[in-house]
Amino acid sequence: MTDQNPLVIFTPSGKRGRFAVGTAVLEAARSLGVDLDSVCGGRGICSKCQITPSFGDFPKFGVNSGAESLSEWNAVEERYDSIRGLPKGRRLGCQATVQGDIVIDVPPESQVHKQVIRKRAEAREITIDPAIRLLFVEVDQPDMHKPTGDLERLQSALREQWQVEAWANLGTLGELQKVLRKGKWQVTCAYHVPTGQILNIWPGYFEGPLYGLAVDLGSTTIAAHLCALDSGEVLASSGVMNPQIRFGEDLMSRVSYVMMNPGGDVEMTRVVRNAINTLIGEIAAQANIDRTDIFELVLVANPIMHHLFLGLDPVELGQAPFALALSDSQTLNARELELDMQSNAKIYTLPCIAGHVGADAAAVALSEAPNQSDELVLIVDVGTNAEILLGNKDGVLACSSPTGPAFEGAQISSGQRAAPGAIEHIRIGDDKEPVFKVVGCDLWSNEEGFSDAVLSTGITGICGSGIIEAIAEMRIQGIVDASGLIGSSEQTGTARCITDGRTNAFVIYDSSAEGGAKITVTNGDIRAIQLAKAALYAGARLLMDKLNVDEVDRVILAGAFGAHISPKHAMVLGMIPDCPVEKVTSAGNAAGTGARIALLNLASRGEIEQTVREIEKIETAIEPKFQEHFVEATNIPHATAPYSGLREVVPLPDVSFNVSGGTSRKRRRRG
Amino acid sequence: MTDQNPLVIFTPSGKRGRFAVGTAVLEAARSLGVDLDSVCGGRGICSKCQITPSFGDFPKFGVNSGAESLSEWNAVEERYDSIRGLPKGRRLGCQATVQGDIVIDVPPESQVHKQVIRKRAEAREITIDPAIRLLFVEVDQPDMHKPTGDLERLQSALREQWQVEAWANLGTLGELQKVLRKGKWQVTCAYHVPTGQILNIWPGYFEGPLYGLAVDLGSTTIAAHLCALDSGEVLASSGVMNPQIRFGEDLMSRVSYVMMNPGGDVEMTRVVRNAINTLIGEIAAQANIDRTDIFELVLVANPIMHHLFLGLDPVELGQAPFALALSDSQTLNARELELDMQSNAKIYTLPCIAGHVGADAAAVALSEAPNQSDELVLIVDVGTNAEILLGNKDGVLACSSPTGPAFEGAQISSGQRAAPGAIEHIRIGDDKEPVFKVVGCDLWSNEEGFSDAVLSTGITGICGSGIIEAIAEMRIQGIVDASGLIGSSEQTGTARCITDGRTNAFVIYDSSAEGGAKITVTNGDIRAIQLAKAALYAGARLLMDKLNVDEVDRVILAGAFGAHISPKHAMVLGMIPDCPVEKVTSAGNAAGTGARIALLNLASRGEIEQTVREIEKIETAIEPKFQEHFVEATNIPHATAPYSGLREVVPLPDVSFNVSGGTSRKRRRRG
Repeated sequence: MTDQNPLVIFTPSGKRGRFAVGTAVLEAARSLGVDLDSVCGGRGICSKCQITPSFGDFPKFGVNSGAESLSEWNAVEERYDSIRGLPKGRRLGCQATVQGDIVIDVPPESQVHKQVIRKRAEAREITIDPAIRLLFVEVDQPDMHKPTGDLERLQSALREQWQVEAWANLGTLGELQKVLRKGKWQVTCAYHVPTGQILNIWPGYFEGPLYGLAVDLGSTTIAAHLCALDSGEVLASSGVMNPQIRFGEDLMSRVSYVMMNPGGDVEMTRVVRNAINTLIGEIAAQANIDRTDIFELVLVANPIMHHLFLGLDPVELGQAPFALALSDSQTLNARELELDMQSNAKIYTLPCIAGHVGADAAAVALSEAPNQSDELVLIVDVGTNAEILLGNKDGVLACSSPTGPAFEGAQISSGQRAAPGAIEHIRIGDDKEPVFKVVGCDLWSNEEGFSDAVLSTGITGICGSGIIEAIAEMRIQGIVDASGLIGSSEQTGTARCITDGRTNAFVIYDSSAEGGAKITVTNGDIRAIQLAKAALYAGARLLMDKLNVDEVDRVILAGAFGAHISPKHAMVLGMIPDCPVEKVTSAGNAAGTGARIALLNLASRGEIEQTVREIEKIETAIEPKFQEHFVEATNIPHATAPYSGLREVVPLPDVSFNVSGGTSRKRRRRG
Repeated sequence: MTDQNPLVIFTPSGKRGRFAVGTAVLEAARSLGVDLDSVCGGRGICSKCQITPSFGDFPKFGVNSGAESLSEWNAVEERYDSIRGLPKGRRLGCQATVQGDIVIDVPPESQVHKQVIRKRAEAREITIDPAIRLLFVEVDQPDMHKPTGDLERLQSALREQWQVEAWANLGTLGELQKVLRKGKWQVTCAYHVPTGQILNIWPGYFEGPLYGLAVDLGSTTIAAHLCALDSGEVLASSGVMNPQIRFGEDLMSRVSYVMMNPGGDVEMTRVVRNAINTLIGEIAAQANIDRTDIFELVLVANPIMHHLFLGLDPVELGQAPFALALSDSQTLNARELELDMQSNAKIYTLPCIAGHVGADAAAVALSEAPNQSDELVLIVDVGTNAEILLGNKDGVLACSSPTGPAFEGAQISSGQRAAPGAIEHIRIGDDKEPVFKVVGCDLWSNEEGFSDAVLSTGITGICGSGIIEAIAEMRIQGIVDASGLIGSSEQTGTARCITDGRTNAFVIYDSSAEGGAKITVTNGDIRAIQLAKAALYAGARLLMDKLNVDEVDRVILAGAFGAHISPKHAMVLGMIPDCPVEKVTSAGNAAGTGARIALLNLASRGEIEQTVREIEKIETAIEPKFQEHFVEATNIPHATAPYSGLREVVPLPDVSFNVSGGTSRKRRRRG
């Protein structure tokens, strides 16, 4: 090509080059690496390569283009326009050829790598580039002189027209003959990029979309998002309870179940796969698609759920050295896992970080990308175990901390799961009278209509976020002292403080006279939360020690629990280390988001696999400093770090209570 | 290393190098590329690396070695010797270290690539280097500081100790935890080289052997050889009938069955896989092993059997352009094919050459290696279709010729399969009296004791090799003329020539008076054989045309039929082109041998895949010259080529018969 050739400039990329007269715009775009989509490979079938020529004088490009700069509207475009309609001003990039200097705009919908904007402002965009692509090809017909098989001719068509090496299993091969002939030697393949497998084949041009599922397999619930793989759109979301609950509420009790009942892991594998199959059916029905239209499932889970899903014995994860059977990401077949989807559908599981820090934590790392952050970010995903990530672009540390189930409402006298009727938010006024909100009702308890609104559910208990707010508010109002003791009614000046054995309790709600619940926060409850939050804090603190820092720039609370708790109350309680309160945010279901990113963007899989390899894993169980931090962190707030900013926002009263009838064990130990 | 280092010379390879004092012999061998086996990687466990030091003066090597040239017998060798016994003079190559100049002999059993001598002198040796290797590894124990999975630690052990990349499916992963711990972090893996898959894992050192099956899936019978993958030894051979026979005797009738009965292919796939499962069970029992000890099956078959085995619709193969669904070799899982072997066992199918020239012909090409021959070799594998290969190291051609079932005894009035009671050899004396042998009896019919010997089977018919010898002998004795007509009793001077409709027949055996069989060769039989042999000859001739030759240097008759027919009679009949009679040999079951080579030598798979790509495929159906050759070749012998040598060996009488009552259609056409 000489300088005499026309100059072609693509916007918005600004990529430019000179091309011989007659070069198709699609071809020019490809040779410059411009992001212009095409499924049919330039045959005027798919219309994905639509472009908008810009005519006029463009001094900044040194180009003056007129209608004669592109070839005339042709029969293929005419036919396409008459059947499906081309937006005004649009041309098909595979049909329009370069005739003179021209500026060509690639509209967003013609870009292969569309970006989906995530709702939260701070979160990164997802570039849509899934692991499964639709490839339209024209296959040579059989030739007695060159008697290669249908498969081999399809393979060479894919090689020549798409530069990919492909193979197919026997199931797909069984369809190949008929589909090739039905499509008159034009077919569309669903091509799985990581393995090169042809997952399905359609006669002629098949537009899609294909669908994928992002699944967050938790010990309590299994949540799934159904996405269109071409647009990234979430078409349906659904969740089911994890039926393994009947083998044990929490992770360790499920491991114990296997220890006590050999073969119990097989049973738990079966029920969880069944539940996912049910979920697949529900979500497909919800989106009005067939379950066989779902070509891929990305799964994230903690290590024990991950192992049980894969059919691996989790017992080793229940005891030191907490050895994973496998840690890397896996690309598997749905069929191997007895999942009922498209018959060749693929399963991708994210890597596990460590024996206690699973693929769910890896998904959080993918979603929140601490490894790309300039700020030092602490990410905590609170459940029975808290997974903790700390780092920035210089490096990321991870650990898990055994918080126990208190944050989930277990081991709390009036505790319950976050279900309708559970108190989830609470405020205590200067008069020491509480007002609260319950799950399933938007009104506060002192607002008009509250009683009627909660009539159906009742007020039945207090959930994890509620107990945290309750204790923090009690601390703010001087009902609880720094060591975690509740004062008596005399000491606190409210009749809501009642004697409860050798300690006191605080009555939040009492309808026992009418046969309803009496919801109290006992000193035992506070102890349970103190232990849980101390474990969480100690884990975070341990990672901070490793980086030799006393503060973090940002705290992200991940997980369903993290989405519900109030940052201010968490800090009053001393759950998380010191940080400006406005820098504490919730990431919602970051693990689920990570699963969705991995589903929609193939490159992100390589990224998180690399990140996980690079993450420095800290095992709290063998770090002596962990115990030390744990002990120091039981106070409310703990004594080691000053609260920058928070003290001004929330002044904490300097009270100290004695337990009636003696000193608490706690105080004795600290004395 | 300096020249001061001791010189180490390995025999029989003659490889030599200088090594630092203290270098293990195994290590020295490896660095020189000497073929010295080791499964345990030099840990003194497997004893595969036994060597024999040669002490004394070796002027030709410039070496004088004494007992002090190797380190002393050590505790590992002592222990091994006491438990299993080391042959006198042997050392373990991983234990003995170099101390001075030394000549070291590697005995054949210590070579990785042992060679198995095939029985026939002209056949090549098989180098034992199977697709599945046993690899012993020491795996790192779990480490909380580096929490990688068991799988990942096994993978890095294999990478470091064996330089291989490995993966395992969920089934194997489910075993991994227990086996690693049971073996105290020492395990042996069955590693499938082509895919990198770990097929099985044993605790500690597992010596093997693993077993493999070479299967020749014919339209009539399925034959299998069970081989030990480490020695190549054939431990058992067995065969079963192909149960698809009930859907049609020959290939085309099975294709017709599918055309007439949609889904009939599924049924035929099922029954043939079932039959192979039965065969696997039988052959395992025969060798006293478990069927799950069989790790690989190599299968060869004609294209229709190949497709039905793989579950592919064979209908396209029954009509032009005879399109294969797939032509390349396949590496599949036994489980996909519902074959009951080791749970991760692999199936390898050889490539098909063309729509009529299958993986069985490819196996023949692998066994007989025409592409490595200096001589121009013609290989014919005769069945319902004859597959024909012609070539030498400059190139190989292939075609298939539609011989029909006459050579297998079908369409012959007294014809039957080569089963007990069938006449398989026949000689006609100058007195025009026949003597014969039947299948299942070693005596000729004029030898003493013959009648008693055949009492149990009777004399029931004539099989393919029998009819060929009968017609050739009849031609030699002037009972049949060059056009294929049988003379009358007057013309031939024997009462065995009887009138049979408008033509004559020749009575070979008649016990009809005693209620037994009357076995005759009719003119119709001769016509059927003439058509079959003309097709065979025309195919061969077509390939010779392509190379522009009139003679070949060597003819190889492959297949069960080829093993039974007499070269001289085949040439009298004009089945095969001109060639010195002593250069016509039988290769026995060359397809089965090819399967065995592919089973035992991985590199041979790449070789035959390459050869098949390079073979020039000739489709007889679209070659006008084929018809021409066919018509010319119907005479006995045909008129086009002089028989070099054969005319002297077998003078053919110059007789010519007229058919009573008119001329035959045949003669009319040729007139």
